Amino acid sequence: MKRNAIVAQSGGPSPVINASLLGVLEACREFPDHIDRVYAAWHGVEGILLEELIDMADQDPEELRLLRTTTSAGAVGTCRYKLTEAQVEDFERIIDVMMAHDVGYFFYIGGNDSMDTAHKVSRLAVERGMELAATGVPKTIDNDVGDPGFKLIDHTPGYGSAARYWSYIVQNVNEENRGMSVSESVAVLQAMGRKSGWIPAASRLADPERQMPLQMYFAEGGHTLESLAENVNRELQRSGRCIVVVSEGFDVGGLGEMHDGFGHIEYGASQNTVAQAVVNYLNKVGLKSRGYATGQVPGVLQRSSSIHASTVDIEEAYRVGRKAVEVGVGEGSGWMATILRASDCPYGVRYDKVPLEEVAASARQLPAGWISPDGLDVSDSFLRYARPLIGEDWPRIPIEKGLQRFARLRISFIDRKLPEYVPVRFRAGD
Amino acid sequence: MKRNAIVAQSGGPSPVINASLLGVLEACREFPDHIDRVYAAWHGVEGILLEELIDMADQDPEELRLLRTTTSAGAVGTCRYKLTEAQVEDFERIIDVMMAHDVGYFFYIGGNDSMDTAHKVSRLAVERGMELAATGVPKTIDNDVGDPGFKLIDHTPGYGSAARYWSYIVQNVNEENRGMSVSESVAVLQAMGRKSGWIPAASRLADPERQMPLQMYFAEGGHTLESLAENVNRELQRSGRCIVVVSEGFDVGGLGEMHDGFGHIEYGASQNTVAQAVVNYLNKVGLKSRGYATGQVPGVLQRSSSIHASTVDIEEAYRVGRKAVEVGVGEGSGWMATILRASDCPYGVRYDKVPLEEVAASARQLPAGWISPDGLDVSDSFLRYARPLIGEDWPRIPIEKGLQRFARLRISFIDRKLPEYVPVRFRAGD
Repeated sequence: MKRNAIVAQSGGPSPVINASLLGVLEACREFPDHIDRVYAAWHGVEGILLEELIDMADQDPEELRLLRTTTSAGAVGTCRYKLTEAQVEDFERIIDVMMAHDVGYFFYIGGNDSMDTAHKVSRLAVERGMELAATGVPKTIDNDVGDPGFKLIDHTPGYGSAARYWSYIVQNVNEENRGMSVSESVAVLQAMGRKSGWIPAASRLADPERQMPLQMYFAEGGHTLESLAENVNRELQRSGRCIVVVSEGFDVGGLGEMHDGFGHIEYGASQNTVAQAVVNYLNKVGLKSRGYATGQVPGVLQRSSSIHASTVDIEEAYRVGRKAVEVGVGEGSGWMATILRASDCPYGVRYDKVPLEEVAASARQLPAGWISPDGLDVSDSFLRYARPLIGEDWPRIPIEKGLQRFARLRISFIDRKLPEYVPVRFRAGD
Repeated sequence: MKRNAIVAQSGGPSPVINASLLGVLEACREFPDHIDRVYAAWHGVEGILLEELIDMADQDPEELRLLRTTTSAGAVGTCRYKLTEAQVEDFERIIDVMMAHDVGYFFYIGGNDSMDTAHKVSRLAVERGMELAATGVPKTIDNDVGDPGFKLIDHTPGYGSAARYWSYIVQNVNEENRGMSVSESVAVLQAMGRKSGWIPAASRLADPERQMPLQMYFAEGGHTLESLAENVNRELQRSGRCIVVVSEGFDVGGLGEMHDGFGHIEYGASQNTVAQAVVNYLNKVGLKSRGYATGQVPGVLQRSSSIHASTVDIEEAYRVGRKAVEVGVGEGSGWMATILRASDCPYGVRYDKVPLEEVAASARQLPAGWISPDGLDVSDSFLRYARPLIGEDWPRIPIEKGLQRFARLRISFIDRKLPEYVPVRFRAGD
């Protein structure tokens, strides 16, 4: 019996999130006996709660093909709508909307939290006697989904592109920093990843031979502003310059910006970014020599830079999207499609499935053994792991009239079948 | 009679500064009856003062060819060594070094200050009875060299690439911002250019049809943090999101970071970047709706991103470097090679010369008529001017083993002929 499908994106985007969306869409068409219409929820789970569903059959096939190289989640949106066990009404609403639209397949592209949501939706559907195959598609530039042993997933789609961004901009900043004499000698760059150092670690891919005066400061800890300044001064004595990549999760002793559980900024005393705290500390008290530190905070640029998408990442994001559909149709509910490494050299992966439940509870930090003893670098094991993920060459981002040509989908919602609903977190007082 | 040449770079780099260097080097080889050896000064005028000169004939021709696509000034360095009339000893030293090495040609790649230095060196050489053709090669991403009428120069090499960076990242950030629902609704980006709004203005090239919720705040003024917040709130009411590109020269009423005349940071009360001041203001008191603002400070990334180099800019930077040699050999001392616009559509330029003296005193802001009446946008005249400068397609940045292959020159200095010298600004107490 044919049923409809909903696909939705959740959490911070990546340059390849839409490649997974395309993988889901194309694979759904290959199961015409199982899947009828495919709806994309506008802005993830918010679109399900609000019954804002877009019929993907309405779209121009050429625009859909462009999803492969369309960065971020502008095509159908994503959201940071947090769903906890307590939001019973929201969960019930999700099931109601899916039943109203005869949805038998739910593909959720996201990180740990989204896998948790997919898992809960899957369980609730069973309780309600509804046949629903809820399947996860992994996605996060943070690479923090999974287990320390890499048995659940080798790496998350999105990470390879963030890693490529960092390896490329650190190469560029090295040219810049090397060229600037002693007048601007310390370039401080702030990398994403509040709890794990996967992203700053990728800076080392810019320089696997370790010839740049590059220091990395991880969320995993071990350093303070004081020891950072000592390390920088030592490097300035040696080479006259330094590149500091600091995780936004680096502990600057209360001088930085704090985030709460929903990603909102909490105001500390100084309301500075970590990079600014480091720059101010170095320039005010830390630097022992001529020159000064400058701060760079790429922010969302590191997760939206289309031209830094890794070709390997694009392909894997697409494939894991396809795999999710195969799993959902063939194996039923409660799985996440995953990428496991077959070999390092030559690099090869295989696509498989793991229980949503196991992934939902996971949170992977950079393995301690992959951080160098001085806490400023990563090991060759990390390089062997991460190097294949950034690919070999530039991706082909189509250009039209000198600008990037991104997919432009028709955002019109299918007819609503249910009464209006205000999601729990949108209600007054929340 | 054959004489030697010195080429040097000065000030902040650009992705195409080395293309000008290559233009100078290649053109010098075409005047074998006039020019013998070409020396690059290591870190600009500092290299001349310290007699740190690199013989460019020693270099691998393949590495030299790579200069065309090698970003920033890592190849032979640049500097921010400021030379004022009072530094008589420094100027005398420059002439001494040039005489000692039989230098008859001086090509100085830089902005206003560098043209001023080249002009002074040119005059002093005449006073000392030395034959020296000092010639300027324009370079600055700021596009602030020149006159309001564009008679001295149409645009500076480097600006087209910075403009391309901004038009591309604003496209990417628009996808990101559009995708993020109301949870991260205001993306604030800080653009370089303390005194002029040329760089933030280029953001509009991302969206010539004016469909994005994009606002620009220029150094040229007209807005405050309060009016910025009002404008942002109005846009949030209309479209639920907003992209704010703010010049680092935007007046945040003492809440930002200040720079002195040498580009060094002066500490105000808050030691924040302008972007952070805007973000804090919006999140604390400014925003009237759900969601919050995030800050992006690309910093040196906007002047070092190789892949965002404009192919038009690369070619023009190369050509204007060549033109400088033709002018120096053919017309003698005291000129800057320049780019003048022949036509907008089809875009065409011609290379010419203007007196260094006139350029040295120039400082061009974004023409008032090119800023929209509400102070948040640029006019179509600006778009007609700037559009051709970003080119049509991605540049070809060579890749080797998955990384960018930049030129690597042999940095070994020719034998010194003069006693050691400590530049005025390097002396104790300065």
